[in-house]
Amino acid sequence: MFHRKGIAVLSAAVVAVAATTGVVIAQESHRDNSATIAKQLDSSKPKNVILIIGDGTGDSELTIGRYYLNGAEGPPLAYETLPFAGSFHTWNVKYGPGPDYEPNYVPDSAPTATAWSTGKQTTDARLSQGPSRAETVPGSNKGFKTTFEIMKARGKAVGNVTTAELTDATPAAPSAHISLRACQGPNDARTTCPQETKQSGGLGSIAEQMVDHRLDVNLGGGRARFEQALDNGSANVLDYARGKGFRYVADSAELAAVKNVDKPLLGLFTSGNMTTQFAPLIAAVTPGAGSPTTRCNEGNRPAPEPSLGAMTDKAIQLLSKDRDGFFLQVESASIDKRDHAADLCGQIGETKQLDDAVKEALAFQRANPNTLVVITADHSHTSQIVGDTVDTPGFYATVQTADGAPLRVSYGTGKTPPAQQHTGARVPVAAIGPQASNVLGVRDQTDLFYTLIGRK
Amino acid sequence: MFHRKGIAVLSAAVVAVAATTGVVIAQESHRDNSATIAKQLDSSKPKNVILIIGDGTGDSELTIGRYYLNGAEGPPLAYETLPFAGSFHTWNVKYGPGPDYEPNYVPDSAPTATAWSTGKQTTDARLSQGPSRAETVPGSNKGFKTTFEIMKARGKAVGNVTTAELTDATPAAPSAHISLRACQGPNDARTTCPQETKQSGGLGSIAEQMVDHRLDVNLGGGRARFEQALDNGSANVLDYARGKGFRYVADSAELAAVKNVDKPLLGLFTSGNMTTQFAPLIAAVTPGAGSPTTRCNEGNRPAPEPSLGAMTDKAIQLLSKDRDGFFLQVESASIDKRDHAADLCGQIGETKQLDDAVKEALAFQRANPNTLVVITADHSHTSQIVGDTVDTPGFYATVQTADGAPLRVSYGTGKTPPAQQHTGARVPVAAIGPQASNVLGVRDQTDLFYTLIGRK
Repeated sequence: MFHRKGIAVLSAAVVAVAATTGVVIAQESHRDNSATIAKQLDSSKPKNVILIIGDGTGDSELTIGRYYLNGAEGPPLAYETLPFAGSFHTWNVKYGPGPDYEPNYVPDSAPTATAWSTGKQTTDARLSQGPSRAETVPGSNKGFKTTFEIMKARGKAVGNVTTAELTDATPAAPSAHISLRACQGPNDARTTCPQETKQSGGLGSIAEQMVDHRLDVNLGGGRARFEQALDNGSANVLDYARGKGFRYVADSAELAAVKNVDKPLLGLFTSGNMTTQFAPLIAAVTPGAGSPTTRCNEGNRPAPEPSLGAMTDKAIQLLSKDRDGFFLQVESASIDKRDHAADLCGQIGETKQLDDAVKEALAFQRANPNTLVVITADHSHTSQIVGDTVDTPGFYATVQTADGAPLRVSYGTGKTPPAQQHTGARVPVAAIGPQASNVLGVRDQTDLFYTLIGRK
Repeated sequence: MFHRKGIAVLSAAVVAVAATTGVVIAQESHRDNSATIAKQLDSSKPKNVILIIGDGTGDSELTIGRYYLNGAEGPPLAYETLPFAGSFHTWNVKYGPGPDYEPNYVPDSAPTATAWSTGKQTTDARLSQGPSRAETVPGSNKGFKTTFEIMKARGKAVGNVTTAELTDATPAAPSAHISLRACQGPNDARTTCPQETKQSGGLGSIAEQMVDHRLDVNLGGGRARFEQALDNGSANVLDYARGKGFRYVADSAELAAVKNVDKPLLGLFTSGNMTTQFAPLIAAVTPGAGSPTTRCNEGNRPAPEPSLGAMTDKAIQLLSKDRDGFFLQVESASIDKRDHAADLCGQIGETKQLDDAVKEALAFQRANPNTLVVITADHSHTSQIVGDTVDTPGFYATVQTADGAPLRVSYGTGKTPPAQQHTGARVPVAAIGPQASNVLGVRDQTDLFYTLIGRK
């Protein structure tokens, strides 16, 4: 460990973007933390719950973010400061008639979000519905009860924030029940889930179900899904939402102006996924060629699109007006999407957005200790830190960290840079607040549901 | 989560080696664990400490082991049952004159073992010595004080167990101070570390330093290093150890017959690294070709070589006779070595050996709660679980898990199967016993030293 002096050198490096390349080796005393941890144990049910998801954000993605953003000896990420930590296994089940299902060790984001949103396993692409064929029959697809439904029934305010399309798998799982995640808007559902449309007697597309759920705060991208025409052709989902009394905002300024949730809030800031914080740095197309060691271009997001930190801050401000408490799910979605694309800088910028959201949640939690904050990932992903002169059979890029040192990251689960795949390693979880100690140990991802809804 | 019935189905599957392919989806109640965790908090200094290292054993290697050995829904690994968990960053520093050093994000096993053995950072290949050139000057290379030295000075019994050569980096770091890990025996040191040999006024090779340290229990492979001639040519290190009063054993039966440590015990069971528990299954040489889905050949280790579980059990039996307590370091070394070799079954078998050692430690801890057990890795490694039909630019193999389902593992950090590399993701740590809560959170690997020697 290092003297304050050493830390100070590196903190300065973070501010000045790697103005120094060295760290000073030294030593400091270390005390037992048992008494501090004892004070953190709280068996009461939390009044407020904030769940923050880094999509595809395993130990490797977090370490890459830490080294680039803060440096090895710099201050920790906010994510790294929570007192309790554990791991979730993320396996799901393969499609079948049931009641026995074959395990699937590398899930997509639909069954993983279903796992913590409902406490139950399902098959790839499915949202808060069981894995059998019978679930798609009209009238049978009400599916599993979700965190959002349970919290709403308890009178709590509910919010859903993402940098993806609002109808993408992670934000959709607690908001909708449908057999295929692709059925995001009414057009999509008519094409891909014809048995589950409203005109077929189903619950309709994800966008329609989100409006029907009347959640208090809904913020993200994906406006094009809400601009798809309803089954009767008379209007689109945005019109439908306005008709149901929603307040609609489309940019940062309009979001900043919202002061209360007397009406449900729908904020859609881009037609598709929101723009990444950092500009892309794609791992080399020619295997082994690499890329120059550089800092990322960190100013890629246009100002009219709010940051994840700003959306999280606004959601907390609005939801915390509810005297019964609130439940908020926040997703930094494009850590996963840029990992799929072998985009090192894109991935790091979204890790920064994740950590900025964590900072907002922890600031609220400090002032309101009856709030449980849980941070985790849905599944693991591709990116791996390799030695800075190592050649690999896949693709890599090299950036300069806040320490001023080279960090090489390899992408090797897909045969082209944009074809990288999810992986199956258990994912980290960290928590603070009432019942936070229930993330300790190694658990199934379904177990998180019971922590979120409150344990006995 | 799953009914007892579902768990029973899979427990049977584990015994019968995947006689069923399914799991039953159901639900059970979940209670808050705060009171249970509060009982686990203990600020007293541990009497006994058992440190178990899975070399190169990150979240991915552990998940691969869990799914293959026990199945997704089967019983947890022993490693997964510990109450407190956290992560260590494993960065070290690059060679230089100091006092500032550039960080290195992908370490080898010498600086990582030095980190927890001394609380200090060093450069690749170096053992319990500082990273500057001055450290190699004769007379200056006593280096950093280690866990073994501190515990011996406290009057505790000390043991060192590994499946690697006993003089390999992880067991060597707490037992020796030398600038290059390659200097394992006297011949090696005369060739590679000529300034640090005994005839040059140095501390001598790792093997000689181990004998000079007179640790109570020393078990592993690497007999050939001890058969190298001393600098004066009169004898080898084994003779030197016998002359110093060591008891030498060379196979399982001789080890089993040892009943006390009135003399220091040196057990060397192979000339090099010990034989792996499972036979090799090397990921395909032709990229993309894969391998058939199969169970591993699990009976590869010859009976005269003791298992890691048997060595750990014997070490605990012997060391626990000391009234002042003991300190034991155990390493399952070839998880790393087989990961380097893209050997999926080899790696899994050594993960089983790791978990068998954990079982021995936990059984002792249950009967002797004044024992701290810590399990961690030195650094991350290559293997990643990918979808069971995914093709990758590197190499992969596919095995059948205890669930009866296919598990595909990709190796993509080296351009040939035997050239896979360490990676830089933070590593998991888990602990139980007095002061175990000090592994919570995300820390530098050097911080483990303070947990091992006991905190204020």
